[in-house]
Amino acid sequence: MTKAQPLTRHIISINDLTNKEIETIFEVAQGFLKELADEHIPYRIARSSGLASKSILASLFYEPSTRTRLSFESAMLRLGGATITSADPAVSSAAKGESLADTIRVISNYADIVVIRHPRDGAARLAAEYAQVPVINGGDGAHEHPTQTLCDLFTLRSKNKNLRNMKVAISGDLKGSRTIHSFVYALARFGATIDPLPAPGMELPAHVDRRLREEFHSRMVSKDSAPSESGRIDALYVTADQPHQLSLYAEPEIDYGVLQKKIDAVYVTRFQKERWTEKDRPYPKIDAKFLGEPKYAEASVMHPLPRVNELDASLDSDRRAIYFQQASYGVPVRMALISLLLHLHKNNSLHKFAGGFAKPNYPLYAQPIGTGIACTNPNCITCDPAESQYAAHKFYVIDGQAGQRLRCVYCESDIDEVVTARFAVGDTVRKTFLPGLSALTRAPAERLRHFVIHRSEAEAAAAGFAPRESGAGKVRAG
Amino acid sequence: MTKAQPLTRHIISINDLTNKEIETIFEVAQGFLKELADEHIPYRIARSSGLASKSILASLFYEPSTRTRLSFESAMLRLGGATITSADPAVSSAAKGESLADTIRVISNYADIVVIRHPRDGAARLAAEYAQVPVINGGDGAHEHPTQTLCDLFTLRSKNKNLRNMKVAISGDLKGSRTIHSFVYALARFGATIDPLPAPGMELPAHVDRRLREEFHSRMVSKDSAPSESGRIDALYVTADQPHQLSLYAEPEIDYGVLQKKIDAVYVTRFQKERWTEKDRPYPKIDAKFLGEPKYAEASVMHPLPRVNELDASLDSDRRAIYFQQASYGVPVRMALISLLLHLHKNNSLHKFAGGFAKPNYPLYAQPIGTGIACTNPNCITCDPAESQYAAHKFYVIDGQAGQRLRCVYCESDIDEVVTARFAVGDTVRKTFLPGLSALTRAPAERLRHFVIHRSEAEAAAAGFAPRESGAGKVRAG
Amino acid sequence: MTKAQPLTRHIISINDLTNKEIETIFEVAQGFLKELADEHIPYRIARSSGLASKSILASLFYEPSTRTRLSFESAMLRLGGATITSADPAVSSAAKGESLADTIRVISNYADIVVIRHPRDGAARLAAEYAQVPVINGGDGAHEHPTQTLCDLFTLRSKNKNLRNMKVAISGDLKGSRTIHSFVYALARFGATIDPLPAPGMELPAHVDRRLREEFHSRMVSKDSAPSESGRIDALYVTADQPHQLSLYAEPEIDYGVLQKKIDAVYVTRFQKERWTEKDRPYPKIDAKFLGEPKYAEASVMHPLPRVNELDASLDSDRRAIYFQQASYGVPVRMALISLLLHLHKNNSLHKFAGGFAKPNYPLYAQPIGTGIACTNPNCITCDPAESQYAAHKFYVIDGQAGQRLRCVYCESDIDEVVTARFAVGDTVRKTFLPGLSALTRAPAERLRHFVIHRSEAEAAAAGFAPRESGAGKVRAG
Repeated sequence: MTKAQPLTRHIISINDLTNKEIETIFEVAQGFLKELADEHIPYRIARSSGLASKSILASLFYEPSTRTRLSFESAMLRLGGATITSADPAVSSAAKGESLADTIRVISNYADIVVIRHPRDGAARLAAEYAQVPVINGGDGAHEHPTQTLCDLFTLRSKNKNLRNMKVAISGDLKGSRTIHSFVYALARFGATIDPLPAPGMELPAHVDRRLREEFHSRMVSKDSAPSESGRIDALYVTADQPHQLSLYAEPEIDYGVLQKKIDAVYVTRFQKERWTEKDRPYPKIDAKFLGEPKYAEASVMHPLPRVNELDASLDSDRRAIYFQQASYGVPVRMALISLLLHLHKNNSLHKFAGGFAKPNYPLYAQPIGTGIACTNPNCITCDPAESQYAAHKFYVIDGQAGQRLRCVYCESDIDEVVTARFAVGDTVRKTFLPGLSALTRAPAERLRHFVIHRSEAEAAAAGFAPRESGAGKVRAG
Repeated sequence: MTKAQPLTRHIISINDLTNKEIETIFEVAQGFLKELADEHIPYRIARSSGLASKSILASLFYEPSTRTRLSFESAMLRLGGATITSADPAVSSAAKGESLADTIRVISNYADIVVIRHPRDGAARLAAEYAQVPVINGGDGAHEHPTQTLCDLFTLRSKNKNLRNMKVAISGDLKGSRTIHSFVYALARFGATIDPLPAPGMELPAHVDRRLREEFHSRMVSKDSAPSESGRIDALYVTADQPHQLSLYAEPEIDYGVLQKKIDAVYVTRFQKERWTEKDRPYPKIDAKFLGEPKYAEASVMHPLPRVNELDASLDSDRRAIYFQQASYGVPVRMALISLLLHLHKNNSLHKFAGGFAKPNYPLYAQPIGTGIACTNPNCITCDPAESQYAAHKFYVIDGQAGQRLRCVYCESDIDEVVTARFAVGDTVRKTFLPGLSALTRAPAERLRHFVIHRSEAEAAAAGFAPRESGAGKVRAG
Repeated sequence: MTKAQPLTRHIISINDLTNKEIETIFEVAQGFLKELADEHIPYRIARSSGLASKSILASLFYEPSTRTRLSFESAMLRLGGATITSADPAVSSAAKGESLADTIRVISNYADIVVIRHPRDGAARLAAEYAQVPVINGGDGAHEHPTQTLCDLFTLRSKNKNLRNMKVAISGDLKGSRTIHSFVYALARFGATIDPLPAPGMELPAHVDRRLREEFHSRMVSKDSAPSESGRIDALYVTADQPHQLSLYAEPEIDYGVLQKKIDAVYVTRFQKERWTEKDRPYPKIDAKFLGEPKYAEASVMHPLPRVNELDASLDSDRRAIYFQQASYGVPVRMALISLLLHLHKNNSLHKFAGGFAKPNYPLYAQPIGTGIACTNPNCITCDPAESQYAAHKFYVIDGQAGQRLRCVYCESDIDEVVTARFAVGDTVRKTFLPGLSALTRAPAERLRHFVIHRSEAEAAAAGFAPRESGAGKVRAG
């Protein structure tokens, strides 16, 4: 009763949508945009399409927000629906110590669709597991913010006609910005070249970088390895337009000149100070001088907003500034997403699709609640004491180019093999362990609950498991 | 103009509804539940019945809430109505020092019905006195939470077909939980046997216990007077199914075996830490082990939520756990209550009924504002300095089995006679006093304003009143 | 794109509406009031007129509010519209450091009309400059609160049939109350006599007093200059009914007897403690004793609410008390204003009017952002560091009876000439300065950006400008 129905679609990561589904959302959004604009005169009194007149959207915001929450609510109201809102955790059940898992089970009885924002990475995925209605991630910790990315892509599509083969620079806090993480995955999937301009120490997280290269077929291209004068590395991610074209990439074919090519868009983000302990750090400012470089001559300037000081106010009147237009697309794009998730269109539905980006089909290691190796990301929702009774430790087992690792199902960060050792999987029935994670990937699903992962063979031995020869079942001498 | 119209019904206590009215609410709720379920597929897109399309519900919450507020708002929206919300006292007029009496007089101009939550006992009754529209108590201090009880009863009715003759165990903070107080009154009125399992020191308040026995005809049955190993007293309240059957109760007929009988439901509540100064106290945890006792084999497990640690998460998948179903009934039950209070049904209305449970008709002692004996419950709304100009000291005068007492009209707690003395009522016209409260109960209403209650004869004498012989008008010698 | 369309009307000051427009609003409000009252039975289930069924109102509240926000939202819902709300700055983008200018540019994409409350004087005017939809000032610092004044005038009109020639006493914090400032302008414009009863040290601000006399043709009449026993000065503003009748005022015609005449209304305000650093100050209390004076025998008692202690609760049952009726007019008056701003009426629209009270057409000195003399009101929105990039320093240049001065376009407070010196305007092209402000008033608009205002000739000289003979172009000897 309390678990999601199998047909319910949740949008937690941008990778929960296929490229084709994203295009479907944009077609529907384009229709709403036209409808809103038709009625724009004199005061944008939009036609309430009445599509969602029987539905309620619940906004469940555990972190400050104005634009994400209000644009979701405006979208639902423009569809003719209604909204209920819990926007301040201090005056909600959370203040009484309630877990997210309990809250979402209750709230999903009161609404037909839920949008959630939460300070913990992976919180939206956990919520979706317990919800009976579709859950949309309105931003979870430093993990993802997929609907912002939909607005960003829609903006680029309106400007450039085509999402493919763009060249996009991303500036600022690439580590802490969930917006950036959803955005770079989507850019890579649409074949973009990504030019990262991080603030010092705020590069893309290692696991995001690795996914870009391993799963989204981006290649890191750099002129030289030395940081340039500005402290940045002149490097970028070059992605094949279609993943299946990867084979076309032969080393000599890479065009190093791409480093000097015209940039289609500069995407600026604020310092996500709520995710850093050190509040005062050097941070790049994008201004007229920066945009004076010839390669930015035709670059659209984007920002998910709010901005603080990283984007000069004098740019507001620059013809390249499209960030307020970008913000204005929040309503039609979210109208499209909500109405598709609620099956309000006769001919279009996200429901019909298989769902999700065709990502590698990694084996899943899901232990009973309270057992097994825990995620090492301290901000992961599974590390929240209030949720520990409700969140199982679940990992995808990945055999990567740089060794084996575990990817947390919730926050999608990785537990890597330690440099000096290998994972070791203990078998609680046989009282033996095998080095590496292969025991998991070879075992039938029903046996997984007997396995315990250790960070090293020494740890497994210390826990009382005896080493066992791989595949042989023969116990080595101690 | 600022006082309630005589026909406006308010739901402040569960005892403001007769048993028959409660059954009416459930019939209407059952209809809404069916309607919501019909449209449940694919995503519970409920038919907006449109019944309340001309009405506005105001949520006025002075304490944290998620489920009560959102389920009320969802109910109003499902009825086709609209909502206005003030959910954070820190950003409302209360922050400027406004009294509740003033706020409700203003808000009731903006809405057609108001739900209020407040940290003070009796606040909802005060609000109702000043409102021009129906007021529903969404929880007032440790006093009552009648709509939660309606959801609880509806859940029991769905499970057990019949509300009569149930056996219900109640566990946890029976003192601080307003939910429990409304619930035990209702259980007793429907003839239930109540098995209290309080945390140490968190027994039912004395005045609630007394009302259960004196007004709701419950009898306390105990195997022996010694506390059992678990610290609890093996005792329960046995109630005649129909109050008029009380005469059937002859001492020998009581079935002591009831103590071992099967329990229909275990009702668990969290530690209401916001009502206690000592935040860390021993507290019972209901888990699989506890429910392993044979008498709980078929017991439904209920909880008003939110839970903290008092109900083990592993029970979520136990077939006896019905607390999420219980939460889901919040919407149809509240749809029924709202629509009945607003007279939106042709054939059913709370308005038609005489209203209220047939409770003893106690004489009312209502002094002009600012005068008379004050309630001794420090958390009573009448003890709030901001309300002192607006809340008269009003009491029901009760001649109980254990002596005379005054019951505050707002918080419904009692002022008992002190052990060593009697109340004394001074007559400010005659300058004399009479011992006991009989002067009040015998006087015509228009003379009440001349009377002042003292806690003892000595106090009355010290205040300058001379003793007067009862009924004789003759002054005793000093 | 980000600047307001020329036809969008904003209501920031009561002086943005002509007297005729105010009367139009009241005619429409009267219709709504009747409609609401028709449906008042049994529970004021108002006919949702459906007029605004395609529109969304955004409430953007940076300061606590209950009645203003909820009455705006109730009004929009009664019109059949919908609402989105950001009521707690601590959980909004403002918490992330976003400027008001950015927020309003984004929000005005999500709604068709915006009501804003802000702690800074002039914030609503700045918001209007950046909004694409109509902005209504719901109270900005100590500046104005025009919709409260509309409710106040509507109440007086209902009571007195005619808004003209009334005599109104205003009591309390006349300095800090934005409500009072909007109210006195309106009273003066409708020919009222205003009797100020300030708390000690809380007189009307000097610039409000001056505008009343210079622009609204009020005359200060006083019996004698000595403060009376109560600490107040027996003085009042007498205004000609029609501004063009000013010429009729010859000194001997003034009726000093007006000081003893019957008062039509006493308007009481609370101590605006949030605008004062010293929280404990003597404050007048209006009670039955005060109102016992014969001239108050027929005076309506008004209060914008919330009240704290300045208006005795015992007056609630006095027939002269109309403050709760006044509050109840919040909904129909705001329904009228919203529907007129959105052009929802066929025959009436604020849009058709020229707009604004016919005020003196002062020259405007508007410097590019970040340059020029700054407003000296520390609470002006232009002095907020977060807004400095978005708010130009703009002033009306006024040649008043008491010398030249600059009136800030946003907060409408004045920068006066210092007593011992004159302003001096430097010309950055010619490197010379002219004493006084006449250089501005005589210069063509396109030259204004070359001028810099200094507080004195000495300051201008110190800044490197050479004195220049007025009108002659000849430079004096140094």
